[in-house]
Amino acid sequence: MLRAREIARLAAAGQDAAAAELKRCEALISAREGDIRAFASRPAQLEPGTGPLAGIACGVKDIVDTADLPTGMGSSIYDGWQPRADAPIVTALKAAGATIAGKTHTTAFAFLDPAPTRNPHDLNASPGGSSSGSAAAVAAGMVPLAIGTQTGGSVIRPAAYCGVAAIKPSYGLLPTVGIKTFSWSLDTAGLMAASADDLGFALAALTGRAELDAPEAGLKGLRIGVARQDFAGAADAASDEALRRITALAAGAGAKLVELASPPALAEAFHAHGPLQDFEATQALAWEYAERRAALPPKLRAYLDSARNVTPRQYDEARRLSRRGRAACHDVFTEIDVVISYAAPGEAPATLASTGDSKFNRLWTLLGTPCLTIPLTKGPRGLPVSFQVIGRFGADDEVIAVAKSLEKLAAAEV
Amino acid sequence: MLRAREIARLAAAGQDAAAAELKRCEALISAREGDIRAFASRPAQLEPGTGPLAGIACGVKDIVDTADLPTGMGSSIYDGWQPRADAPIVTALKAAGATIAGKTHTTAFAFLDPAPTRNPHDLNASPGGSSSGSAAAVAAGMVPLAIGTQTGGSVIRPAAYCGVAAIKPSYGLLPTVGIKTFSWSLDTAGLMAASADDLGFALAALTGRAELDAPEAGLKGLRIGVARQDFAGAADAASDEALRRITALAAGAGAKLVELASPPALAEAFHAHGPLQDFEATQALAWEYAERRAALPPKLRAYLDSARNVTPRQYDEARRLSRRGRAACHDVFTEIDVVISYAAPGEAPATLASTGDSKFNRLWTLLGTPCLTIPLTKGPRGLPVSFQVIGRFGADDEVIAVAKSLEKLAAAEV
Repeated sequence: MLRAREIARLAAAGQDAAAAELKRCEALISAREGDIRAFASRPAQLEPGTGPLAGIACGVKDIVDTADLPTGMGSSIYDGWQPRADAPIVTALKAAGATIAGKTHTTAFAFLDPAPTRNPHDLNASPGGSSSGSAAAVAAGMVPLAIGTQTGGSVIRPAAYCGVAAIKPSYGLLPTVGIKTFSWSLDTAGLMAASADDLGFALAALTGRAELDAPEAGLKGLRIGVARQDFAGAADAASDEALRRITALAAGAGAKLVELASPPALAEAFHAHGPLQDFEATQALAWEYAERRAALPPKLRAYLDSARNVTPRQYDEARRLSRRGRAACHDVFTEIDVVISYAAPGEAPATLASTGDSKFNRLWTLLGTPCLTIPLTKGPRGLPVSFQVIGRFGADDEVIAVAKSLEKLAAAEV
Repeated sequence: MLRAREIARLAAAGQDAAAAELKRCEALISAREGDIRAFASRPAQLEPGTGPLAGIACGVKDIVDTADLPTGMGSSIYDGWQPRADAPIVTALKAAGATIAGKTHTTAFAFLDPAPTRNPHDLNASPGGSSSGSAAAVAAGMVPLAIGTQTGGSVIRPAAYCGVAAIKPSYGLLPTVGIKTFSWSLDTAGLMAASADDLGFALAALTGRAELDAPEAGLKGLRIGVARQDFAGAADAASDEALRRITALAAGAGAKLVELASPPALAEAFHAHGPLQDFEATQALAWEYAERRAALPPKLRAYLDSARNVTPRQYDEARRLSRRGRAACHDVFTEIDVVISYAAPGEAPATLASTGDSKFNRLWTLLGTPCLTIPLTKGPRGLPVSFQVIGRFGADDEVIAVAKSLEKLAAAEV
């Protein structure tokens, strides 16, 4: 995979060096795109910007508005749709010097109907979704950075399936303005890159928050909660093994591991994700459902047929449970520093027909806590298996710092 | 002014009756638009829908996306801009049977540079902003209902200046998806109509929350806090007199009035509105500022020149103060039922060059509490002077119920 920090270091030599890095990416994209199908649209040429991300080619999920590339939402309803403005996250990328490498394939409206993208580790396996093209483009070594969004597990899950690092920052850290809404209480923009180190570097540059380019955390004495999320059902053996392995490594480095007995308020919050998303998605996609229902893909159409039955009262109860869950989560983080959990149930599905399951991601999206996934092992079919580090709301720097330490431990182990 | 509930009752007789009500509105709009300048664009013809709002012509602020009318944002940058989809609030209006009467003039991007609209009570006075056209269209009797949005005081203030009733519901009650963002933590969609009664009727129909069409509240024993908002500076004598008069009426009806000694956390939250909005507006309008700065109107341009200096740290502190303010507000509402305060500093400014001051609105927008304004008296220049009723977050029905009782008292007094 392409390393963002390293590319930025080389590109810092000047415009020619930055242009050369972008040329390299263009060649890599051209070479692999036929197999991977990561991009919905691409600019004619990649021009270098100036700033800390100069020379960095960045994939942008195709539900994010761009002023000079169409924004198709993965749906024929928006075929060739050309927004007037860039979304703020795109303007921020450009202001930091990054170059938009193209719009990456998304499942339609970031729901479950698969995008055309394939998993670079196995062209017949799912790359996950909904940020399919972003994850696959980074995994295939086409770009060092990509933007995804997560409402259930749409950043962390495809990253885990494709074996890349990704962060879903605290809710609202990255602006979601100009990004097609699915559920405004849940939608969160995130980044994908080769490593936690690259994520910290890029996120700091993008937000102007220098502390996010955090140094590795000391693991000695660090209190790590291990969350099996029983309320979400079981994980595959491969994800269990990855969790066992990373906790053993952390314990070996002096961290204090505690099994997290999830308070009931967290399980209730997990179950509140459904009605919360249902009610908001029904409104967010109201025009598409009312005026273009026949053009919606089958999974989304069936979902909206059902989601519209959630009542305002059920929605208000889901919001109440979300608030209670956030309070309970706040309490959890008084006794531990970070949580480690499954990033996905296991390896990527052995099919292009399903983008997999977000059951281990949904709670944290609802709580708004930062989540960072790193690939760790291989599963029975030889595909990547990952874990995720979760921190308290606003402690994105701490999550990055711990993830960097764990990633180093994992690399030393291999 | 046109009464929404009454029009809906007449239109319920059938499609012909609904069409006749819309024809009547079209004639009223045509007759007054030359003076008032409320509309940025209008459809060729108003077709009746079916549902509880059949026959209701609704003005929609021109920062709200519409699929069959341009959405100009009050700025040359979006001249003739045609969104693909209706914003969810527009789809909800149509689903409830309402007919879009046209897009109403907004200040550019809902900031302070005046729209071309004039105050129906005095064509040389400001209609207020940023929902200038919506307030003026209702005040001039052109439409019985209009949509506005508020980030500081952009629903309540123009309503007060134009002498119409308006509700800024609890944050998030009406979806803001498909509405141009200024500050995502603050932006709130609201309604304007002839009376609190009409607002309750329309809001219930629009949201499917029947309890919002609340009956009048009993005032006997009702605990009303009187908030002078000293932290915001002084009100004009006219607004002071309106507040004195409505509290006297309420006390006469048996309500218990208490002067609200604002806890310091509320004053701090009031002051947090600035940096919170500055930081988010800088991002929300990042593309316009980076790519079209010269085309921005002068007040907005100067604002963004300055707002961009707010640091992430200052923003995080403003968010922290907002959360503290919300907690303090929650405590306030354990001891009182509703708050009454100024809706605006006084009469509308005697100029078209300023949209007035939102200083008595900003705190409540930040807290997310429902606010409902009703016109009460006339000021020294003969223009309307109003007050507002404020409730705890989520108690929109209670605010409507109390406002309906107060509005009845006020009418009996005249």
